[in-house]
Amino acid sequence: MNFVSLIETKRDGGRLTSDQIHWLISEYAADRIPDYQMSSMLMAVFKEGLDPDELSAWTDAMLHSGDILDFSHIAAPKIDKHSTGGVGDKVSIPLAPIVTACGIAVPMMSGRGLGHTGGTLDKLETIPGFRTELDPSEFSSILETHGMVLAGQSETLVPADRRIYALRDVSGTVPSIPLISSSIMSKKLAEGLDGLVLDVKVGSGAFMKDLERARELAKTMVEIGRNHGTTVTALITDMSQPLGREVGNASEIRESVEMIQGGGPPDLVELVYRIGSEMLVLGGVAADLDDGRARMASVVTSGAAFDKFKDVVSAQGGDVAVLNDPSLLASASRLHVIEANRSGVIIEADALGIGVGAMRLGAGRETKDDAIDPGVGTTVHVNIGDEVAPGAILATLRYNDDTNLADAIALTEGAFVVAEGPARIPPLVYEEVR
Amino acid sequence: MNFVSLIETKRDGGRLTSDQIHWLISEYAADRIPDYQMSSMLMAVFKEGLDPDELSAWTDAMLHSGDILDFSHIAAPKIDKHSTGGVGDKVSIPLAPIVTACGIAVPMMSGRGLGHTGGTLDKLETIPGFRTELDPSEFSSILETHGMVLAGQSETLVPADRRIYALRDVSGTVPSIPLISSSIMSKKLAEGLDGLVLDVKVGSGAFMKDLERARELAKTMVEIGRNHGTTVTALITDMSQPLGREVGNASEIRESVEMIQGGGPPDLVELVYRIGSEMLVLGGVAADLDDGRARMASVVTSGAAFDKFKDVVSAQGGDVAVLNDPSLLASASRLHVIEANRSGVIIEADALGIGVGAMRLGAGRETKDDAIDPGVGTTVHVNIGDEVAPGAILATLRYNDDTNLADAIALTEGAFVVAEGPARIPPLVYEEVR
Repeated sequence: MNFVSLIETKRDGGRLTSDQIHWLISEYAADRIPDYQMSSMLMAVFKEGLDPDELSAWTDAMLHSGDILDFSHIAAPKIDKHSTGGVGDKVSIPLAPIVTACGIAVPMMSGRGLGHTGGTLDKLETIPGFRTELDPSEFSSILETHGMVLAGQSETLVPADRRIYALRDVSGTVPSIPLISSSIMSKKLAEGLDGLVLDVKVGSGAFMKDLERARELAKTMVEIGRNHGTTVTALITDMSQPLGREVGNASEIRESVEMIQGGGPPDLVELVYRIGSEMLVLGGVAADLDDGRARMASVVTSGAAFDKFKDVVSAQGGDVAVLNDPSLLASASRLHVIEANRSGVIIEADALGIGVGAMRLGAGRETKDDAIDPGVGTTVHVNIGDEVAPGAILATLRYNDDTNLADAIALTEGAFVVAEGPARIPPLVYEEVR
Repeated sequence: MNFVSLIETKRDGGRLTSDQIHWLISEYAADRIPDYQMSSMLMAVFKEGLDPDELSAWTDAMLHSGDILDFSHIAAPKIDKHSTGGVGDKVSIPLAPIVTACGIAVPMMSGRGLGHTGGTLDKLETIPGFRTELDPSEFSSILETHGMVLAGQSETLVPADRRIYALRDVSGTVPSIPLISSSIMSKKLAEGLDGLVLDVKVGSGAFMKDLERARELAKTMVEIGRNHGTTVTALITDMSQPLGREVGNASEIRESVEMIQGGGPPDLVELVYRIGSEMLVLGGVAADLDDGRARMASVVTSGAAFDKFKDVVSAQGGDVAVLNDPSLLASASRLHVIEANRSGVIIEADALGIGVGAMRLGAGRETKDDAIDPGVGTTVHVNIGDEVAPGAILATLRYNDDTNLADAIALTEGAFVVAEGPARIPPLVYEEVR
């Protein structure tokens, strides 16, 4: 096959066959198609899209570029969850032990944060000793023993995605629904799942800024799952304001531990229950969502979920002392408080501004090679719709280095709008796509 | 500036500023933007286009990536001609000496053939000793002495185009009107011209297959010239059937010599006069097109045009003996004749089929690194509209190697359609754009 003619076909709005797509993905993964041709193809795909058959073939070709995990020897249903990423989104951390304690298996592979969105791996690594890089046999053995594992993406899974993602990042072809959905779904399907719940975030702090695009992404991923024979449920959830109170790494572990033990802010708790009950229903462990919620509440109350979390942390080398006493986790040495300068209602608590502000404090990476500071971050004390008096604390910035403090303060201050009400309070979950 | 953000701007249909365009072209020419980013930008430009201001900036940036020739010390008006390429298109070869003999200066830089279209340089190099690679001082000195020069593109002119053209070729971004027009016009404007006549070919054997696209390309190039302060006239001419009788390299030199001496097939003669008279009017040498034609006829009849051609060939190292006796030029050892198998009218003499057939005989290159065989090619004995009897000779294939002969015969036979008339005879010149 001639790659240029395939670029031309896609460029002119034509359809690529399954054979052509499998060929081009495998040739690129094998380094037999140069980057300058693949980036042109990616831009053509960006502009012309992929139809459902093309997209299934593209995802399947990516999936088969590396190992595909097989946990069929584990009796429990293998169900995972994936979020498209947001500010303060620590859902995976309390969610995984709670649903595992209810009887499903969660082979969760997560990513690192980039830009204003945090990464589950970065948060977990604030637990001293916790290892997120597991070789395949260790990954499998922890999953078998504990029913869950929280690790980074294995090098041998979907190597085509690794290359294509890096190229998209530098060629202006990131925000393409077929490219995003094939990237996410190929990695998740490579985990050998029985079911998957997707949390597609929408709003200023999310990748998808409007509901229509979020819905398109959700539908596209659910359809990829269906074509692959894996049941996928997608929830479209709000990311116009941060999720929970904490935006940071160690602080999000603290908030997660609080939640696993029955506390935590209401929005985080509700979203964990919503997603978790979907997972339990998908896995056949719960009869319906209400039954799922009841089962989750039960393992939280009994302490079984927290025990599960500590067992897994321990199995992955982490020091459970910091879970028993989260004040031992990293913290920042200095504080800056942002106050309301008038009375009114919180109209906006913009996730993007707060997220970028926290990144500037050192909680996130501006580029892939930046180091993060585990102890810094922002605590958000208010939600959209809250009434405040002048001087009410809106946010607390926790920092060690004041190099970018002024910038972080300006970003965070600018994220809050206090005005006459009423505020338009966004729903936590906009809709579900099955 | 951040190149990815410029890709994103163009990808999303935005406008690039003149500064951004100058920056990106100069950075790419200096090898500071990688090919995989530029190919993505080129695909975005392919899909979204460039508006007139962007296109002027793009062309100007290309133009200024290298040397710009200055022949202001030469009193004669500097007028060149450029064809978008076709089958049997040897117009430049008789044209240049005829118009030079009328008093204009022609600093002509030409290209090599690729695919089914021939290249002026390949044809000229069938003259033993003729050198098309001239250094700038030799180019200038031959132009000063003889009023014309026929050479390849200098390495120092428009280096950005050299890189971008090579990248377009392998990234599926060739047939884009802004990219084609900026490539052509930057090279021509770098010749330091007072005026330019463009021959935009349309039809099966041309790059532009339909009149609308050809018109768009012509208008775009005329506008680039206008924005640059150089008067450009474009003629849209037919390439549904080959131009003249000969398709080959040495054979096209023979036909050109015939024309310079007052003979030659009527379509070739008419097109040379049409373009040449436009050049003479642009240069202020002729009062109008009729006056231009009369002046051209006069230098053909007097032999001044042929003398001019021989002087320049000699100055560029060529052996004029082959011009005085064209039978000394390379020829092929074997012939295959294609005959009409019924009586009727020639409805089609498809330039693409005939051109690809001649390429398979060795007259053209399938890839840039192929060698051509100077003596081989096809003689076309009929034009659309001619009446033929069964057994009438339609074409003669001249070849040395029969490896691809069957293929060449099938292609050439398939190019001719003989049927009940009347034929739709295409005009030689569809329209002009000024």
